Amino acid sequence: MTKIEQFQQVINDLIHRQKFDGNPRALYEPISYTLNQGGKRLRPLLTLLACDLFDGDTEKALYPALAVEVFHNFTLVHDDIMDKAPLRRGKETVYKKWNSDIAILSGDTMFAMAYQYTLQTDAALIPDILQVFSKAAIEVCEGQQLDMDFETETEVSLADYLNMIRLKTAVLLGASLEIGAVIAGAAKKDVKAIYDFGMALGMAFQLKDDLLDVYGKQEDFGKMSGGDIAANKKTYLFLKALEMANTEDREKLLALYDNNNGLADEQKIAHVKLLFEKIQVKAAVELAMENYYNEARRQLKHIHAKAEKKEELEAFASFLYKRNY
Amino acid sequence: MTKIEQFQQVINDLIHRQKFDGNPRALYEPISYTLNQGGKRLRPLLTLLACDLFDGDTEKALYPALAVEVFHNFTLVHDDIMDKAPLRRGKETVYKKWNSDIAILSGDTMFAMAYQYTLQTDAALIPDILQVFSKAAIEVCEGQQLDMDFETETEVSLADYLNMIRLKTAVLLGASLEIGAVIAGAAKKDVKAIYDFGMALGMAFQLKDDLLDVYGKQEDFGKMSGGDIAANKKTYLFLKALEMANTEDREKLLALYDNNNGLADEQKIAHVKLLFEKIQVKAAVELAMENYYNEARRQLKHIHAKAEKKEELEAFASFLYKRNY
Repeated sequence: MTKIEQFQQVINDLIHRQKFDGNPRALYEPISYTLNQGGKRLRPLLTLLACDLFDGDTEKALYPALAVEVFHNFTLVHDDIMDKAPLRRGKETVYKKWNSDIAILSGDTMFAMAYQYTLQTDAALIPDILQVFSKAAIEVCEGQQLDMDFETETEVSLADYLNMIRLKTAVLLGASLEIGAVIAGAAKKDVKAIYDFGMALGMAFQLKDDLLDVYGKQEDFGKMSGGDIAANKKTYLFLKALEMANTEDREKLLALYDNNNGLADEQKIAHVKLLFEKIQVKAAVELAMENYYNEARRQLKHIHAKAEKKEELEAFASFLYKRNY
Repeated sequence: MTKIEQFQQVINDLIHRQKFDGNPRALYEPISYTLNQGGKRLRPLLTLLACDLFDGDTEKALYPALAVEVFHNFTLVHDDIMDKAPLRRGKETVYKKWNSDIAILSGDTMFAMAYQYTLQTDAALIPDILQVFSKAAIEVCEGQQLDMDFETETEVSLADYLNMIRLKTAVLLGASLEIGAVIAGAAKKDVKAIYDFGMALGMAFQLKDDLLDVYGKQEDFGKMSGGDIAANKKTYLFLKALEMANTEDREKLLALYDNNNGLADEQKIAHVKLLFEKIQVKAAVELAMENYYNEARRQLKHIHAKAEKKEELEAFASFLYKRNY
């Protein structure tokens, strides 16, 4: 069993030991449903890996790691209301299965629980952990708001988009790692470097997500394939395609992303994919993703830690990079 | 200027110094709108009064007090979505003025900001403050869920109702005081007593709220008069009336709380008020409220603190008890 598998098991065991069986049931059932659904458990894994990287006691990082996972799941529950997403991890979203009021309130409770989990570690560590955690939490909200703003804005630049995914996605990956490093008592410079590693990895991760939404298989990915296209989401793929396209193709693409064109979702997705192929945008997005991935590896190189421990994080980054779900 | 007025000014100044001018604007405008609307600033005042009661340094309690106020406002923003409330403090609610997605996300951000404010005090105090704060936050969510559950439940007992308002309202008043006491380094026994004082005060406060909804003037209270009746809310007033009524009046009352009876809100409210008067339920609710108020005063008596400082809290409790808004 690799260290990654070992940590994954520790996290899954920890989550299964949480009962989420409080009252009222209407509040806790959606929480139990959400947290027992699996998912990649990426963020808590990063917390444990970072703690271990700097030779910290990973026992002290367990509940803060759980906190990050519960927080992440809270954001998904609320985002799914706003995005009107029917499916998450191949299952009905909370707002679909119950209703949006319950999704709001279960989400709020998960947020409070996340904070409570951060307190289950050495008292002396709590202020620093919470600084990192609260800052990330606010930035994630800012990112989600930008994402919503983009829906109605006609001009979204690639830079705007990258700033949005930095806040919405990358920051929490960075923070997950930073919390692990803080618990291990890593040097300030290394704490910064592991955060930057996480940020770059997070950017690559989100670009991969954009690609998978269009090119991944629904059974692997757990979300509706082409969902971003159906929802007129201004993803990196779409914005880059607009940038690369000639005038004619750009107009075609914009016309396809118009709800009044009378096309059914399947037709629309098929047409957009054909245009993407013609423009050869997939390779361009893959290149951007690779740049972020290389930046992450560069940050990791600068960190003062044992080579074999750095390899664990490198292996994990590589796994994320190559994933098909 | 009394100490209460002095603390109120300190809190209002502190809130006005917060800029809430971050980006994206769509996220921070509703936050600024909500927090600059006034309101009684009850909870932060309790934090400062409790800290002062035990001769603590109220400077250290300022940001934790602000945290409680921001948290409370976050719950209002989310509750107003769930309750479909058009007005709050005489102004449009966030979800009405903007939309429910923005209300969800601004609320989430306020929750994260609240946690960030708790960190602006002595590091050594943070773990204890956060234990109190997180527990209360979860209980407030549980209370709101019970409140929602009651909407569809046919049998709600007075005990169920009291448990609901204990969680939804009283707990946060208790926690506001407890946080102040913790910051002052009060003895465990006194921390417990001030919490219990706040719980009893919170129960009295909510029963007063139920009364004001029906008998308060809209211009004083800032909410639609009779709103609870229009919304078929199972308040203490309604549940107590059911308990006290004879069979005939009970059936009349239940028939009035039936959306299919074809009555306009104004007619319905007028009919219900006439029935309440006949049953003489107002006096019974006032008695229950008085019992909680006396229990609060009893708790305060047991506390080890200077008499003149206890008088401040007693005066404040009395003000809440007699308020007409």
